[in-house]
Amino acid sequence: LLTKPPSGTRDFLPEDVRRREHVVSAVRTVYERYGFEPLETPAFENIETLLGKYGDEGNKLIFKILRRGEHEASGEADLALRYDLTVPLARVVAEHRNQLPRFFKRYQIQPVWRADRPARGRFREFYQCDIDSIGSRSPVVEAEQLSAVGEVLTTLGFEDFIVHVNHRQLLAGLLDAAGIASGQQASVLVALDKLDKVGPDGVLHELIARGVADENARRLLDAVIVRNHGDGAGWLTMQASRLGDEGRRGAENLIELLELAAGTDVGTRLRLDPSLARGLSYYTGAIMEIRTPDSPGSIAAGGRYDTLIGSFIGQDLPACGFSLGLERILVVMTERGLFPSRVSRGAADALVTLWSDDTRAEALRLATELRAADVRSDVYPEPDKLGKQFKYASARGVPFVVVVGEDERRGGMVSIKDMRSGEQTTVPRGEAPTHIRARIPGSHPRSHP
Amino acid sequence: LLTKPPSGTRDFLPEDVRRREHVVSAVRTVYERYGFEPLETPAFENIETLLGKYGDEGNKLIFKILRRGEHEASGEADLALRYDLTVPLARVVAEHRNQLPRFFKRYQIQPVWRADRPARGRFREFYQCDIDSIGSRSPVVEAEQLSAVGEVLTTLGFEDFIVHVNHRQLLAGLLDAAGIASGQQASVLVALDKLDKVGPDGVLHELIARGVADENARRLLDAVIVRNHGDGAGWLTMQASRLGDEGRRGAENLIELLELAAGTDVGTRLRLDPSLARGLSYYTGAIMEIRTPDSPGSIAAGGRYDTLIGSFIGQDLPACGFSLGLERILVVMTERGLFPSRVSRGAADALVTLWSDDTRAEALRLATELRAADVRSDVYPEPDKLGKQFKYASARGVPFVVVVGEDERRGGMVSIKDMRSGEQTTVPRGEAPTHIRARIPGSHPRSHP
Repeated sequence: LLTKPPSGTRDFLPEDVRRREHVVSAVRTVYERYGFEPLETPAFENIETLLGKYGDEGNKLIFKILRRGEHEASGEADLALRYDLTVPLARVVAEHRNQLPRFFKRYQIQPVWRADRPARGRFREFYQCDIDSIGSRSPVVEAEQLSAVGEVLTTLGFEDFIVHVNHRQLLAGLLDAAGIASGQQASVLVALDKLDKVGPDGVLHELIARGVADENARRLLDAVIVRNHGDGAGWLTMQASRLGDEGRRGAENLIELLELAAGTDVGTRLRLDPSLARGLSYYTGAIMEIRTPDSPGSIAAGGRYDTLIGSFIGQDLPACGFSLGLERILVVMTERGLFPSRVSRGAADALVTLWSDDTRAEALRLATELRAADVRSDVYPEPDKLGKQFKYASARGVPFVVVVGEDERRGGMVSIKDMRSGEQTTVPRGEAPTHIRARIPGSHPRSHP
Repeated sequence: LLTKPPSGTRDFLPEDVRRREHVVSAVRTVYERYGFEPLETPAFENIETLLGKYGDEGNKLIFKILRRGEHEASGEADLALRYDLTVPLARVVAEHRNQLPRFFKRYQIQPVWRADRPARGRFREFYQCDIDSIGSRSPVVEAEQLSAVGEVLTTLGFEDFIVHVNHRQLLAGLLDAAGIASGQQASVLVALDKLDKVGPDGVLHELIARGVADENARRLLDAVIVRNHGDGAGWLTMQASRLGDEGRRGAENLIELLELAAGTDVGTRLRLDPSLARGLSYYTGAIMEIRTPDSPGSIAAGGRYDTLIGSFIGQDLPACGFSLGLERILVVMTERGLFPSRVSRGAADALVTLWSDDTRAEALRLATELRAADVRSDVYPEPDKLGKQFKYASARGVPFVVVVGEDERRGGMVSIKDMRSGEQTTVPRGEAPTHIRARIPGSHPRSHP
C-alpha cells in the first residue's frame, strides 16, 4: 500500500501548518498595511495560457491535465497546473481590467507546481508569495515594495538581511562600455548571475567560454565589482556621465530609487550591487535581491518588468514585483528558532477527562463552558484510566487537565492539573474557565507577531 | 486571446478573497477552540490512491495528470487532483500513524477538483471544509462535532438552522421491519434521500420503480415520516424494543447521542429525522445534516463511518466526520447580508497624495509613519491632479486622503480629508497617524467576529 505523498510533495501535519500559517499571516498583515490587496486564481489554467511563457525548459516542467470523458483516450491535455503567479496575474488583469484600479497592487499567496527533479529544499508543490504593482513607472513603486518586504522580514524576526539593488539598464550600459555586443548580453547576464557561487575567476572563465574577449570580460568584471562606492550616489552619477543613453537612464533611475528607499525602514540595509544580474529575462529596470548571511541565494527577489504583462494582454502596462521565498524563509526560521512558542502551543489548552459513561454529558458541558471563555478544550472521548488520560494530554502538549471526580462533583468543584508544574488545584467549577484562561502559556495570541 | 479562467473555476478578486477569508478564519478559530488540529495535503495524489474510491461515476470526474518527459507521449496519467479530503486523510493516517495521537481530531480547509458539468453554484474547483475525529466509537465524538459546527454557523450569523439527525443502523432496522430485503437497502436509501426534493409520493413511486413492493414501500414511508415524536427519546425507545438487533443498537446509540448533544449550545436545534438517509454509502452509524429555511439542500452534513478508513489502511479504525458547505454558506451569507462592513473595508485606510516628484520622499515617509500606527496606507505613485487622486481614493473605498501642500509642509502640518463626510481637517503632522487611526470605520478588527 502506497501511503507516502507523491514525489516532491509534502503532507503538512498540525505543527507544520501552524508554522506556515504563522508566516503567511505575518506576510498578509504587512502587505495589507501597504495597501496591497489579495488575489487568488484557479489551480489550473487553460493549457494555452501557460505554454510558451516559461521557455523550453519551463514547458517541460508544467504539469498537464488530461482531457476528460470521451477525449481522455486521446492522451491530450487541455489544462495545466499553475506554474507561477505572474502569468495568472496577467490573465486576470486582461480579463478584469474594468474592475481593477488604475494602479493595481495585489498580493497572492498560493501553491505552484513544477515537475522539477525533487531535491533537498526543492519541491514539486511549493508556495509562492508575490506582490506586484501594475500601472506605474514611478520609482515610488520600487521603494514601497522594498519597504514592505523589509517589514515582513523584520516582523518575522530577521535582523541581518541586506538588500542588493541594481538596474538592468545600467547593466546594459556597463556591458556596452565593456565592449560586449548586444547579441551577447543575455548570455553574459546568465554568467554574471553566478558570481556569488563561482567567484570572479569562475565568471571570467565562463564569460570567455561564452565567447567574450578576455579583455572585455576583465573590463566588465572591473566595472561591476565595485569595492567602495560609498552610498552609491557618487558612483552612479559618475556612470551616468560616462555611459550611453540607456546606461545613463538606468543610473539616474537607480539614484532616485535609492534616495526614496533611504527614507523608509529598509534604508540602512540598501546596498548598490552593480554585479547583481538576476536570472529572469523579462526584467527591464530595477532588480532587487534580499540575502541573509546564513542562507545561500536570496530569501526574496524582485524587479521591474514593464513589457511582460503588456505583451500578454496586448497593451502597454508597466509593472514591478517582488517574490518572497516562503519555503526558504521557513527553513531559516526553523534553523534560527524564530518561531514564537505560541506557534507550538499544542492541540488544546485543556483536556476534560472522562470517568464513566455517566459523566460524559457533564464533561461536554464543562468543555462548552471552557470554550465559551476562549479556552481551547478537548474532551477525552471514552472512559479510561486517569493515568492514560494524563499521558495523552502530555503527549499532545495540552497544559491543563480538568478532573471532575465524585467528591468534586458533589461539592461543585473541579480539579485542575497544571501539566508543566505537576501542581493540582481545586477550584469552584464556575471559576475553572477564568482560572485556566489566565494561566495559558503565551496567552492572548494576536493575529500577527 | 483567452482571458477567462477555465470552465467551472473562478478568479477571486480582492473583495471575494476577503469574504472567503472572513468565513475561513471564523471556521478555523472555532475548530481550534474544540481541539481540532489543522492538516494540509498535496493538491495531487498518486492516481492509484484515488481510483476506485469514489465509484464509477467518481472515477470519471477525477482530473488526471499526464506523465511527464519521455512518458508524456504515452498519454498515461500517474497523478490525480484531490477529489475530496477523506481519502487523503486516510492516507495520512496510514503514513503518519506513529506521530498522530490515539484520538486524532483534524480540520482541513482546501480546494478539491471535480470534472462535473459546471452549473449555477456548481464548480470544478471548490473548497471543502472538513472535521474528522479518528479513533473512537464514543457518541461524545458526534456530540462534540455537532456543537462545533453549530458554533461555526452561529458565529457567522446564522440563527435559524435545524440539525437533522438519524442513524444508519436504525434505518436498516426500519427497512428490515418494512420487509425490504437487505440487497435492496442501498438502493432504497438513495430513493429515500430524495424525500426533500420529490415529497413522499415521489419517493413512493421511485421505491416501486426500484422494485419494492407497494405495501412495503408504504410501510417504510409511514415508519420514517414521523410527525410527532416529541424529543425523540420516546419514539426511539419504542423502536429499540420493536426492531431487531441492528435497529435496536442504532436507536440506543441515537438516544445517547441526542442526550449528550442536548447539553451543548446546539441542543435546542436538534431534530430527530428518521427519513434522513444521506447519499454516501460509507456511513455506518449516526448521520447528520444542517439545513436553513432559505437554502435548498444542506449547508453542513456528516456522519460516522467506522469501516472506511480501516478498509483503506488495513486496520480497524473508527471515524466520524462533518463537512461544511463553504460555497453554499458564502452564497447564503451574501444573500442575507451577513458580512460585517469591515470585510468590505476597501484597499487601504488612507491614501497619501503626491504633488510633484520633489514630494515623493516626503510622501513615502508619511506613509511609513501611518503604517507604523497600523493605518493601512497607500501612496499615489505619480504626481497628478489632486482631483484625480481624490477620485482614485473614492473608487477604491479609501476613507481618508492625506495632503501635504506647500503651506502645510512649511508649518509642519498635514491636511486630512474624510471622504465620507467631505470634511477636511489640518493637524500637526505628528498627530496624523493617531487622528486617522481613531476614525477608521470598523476599527480594531479582530481575527474572528
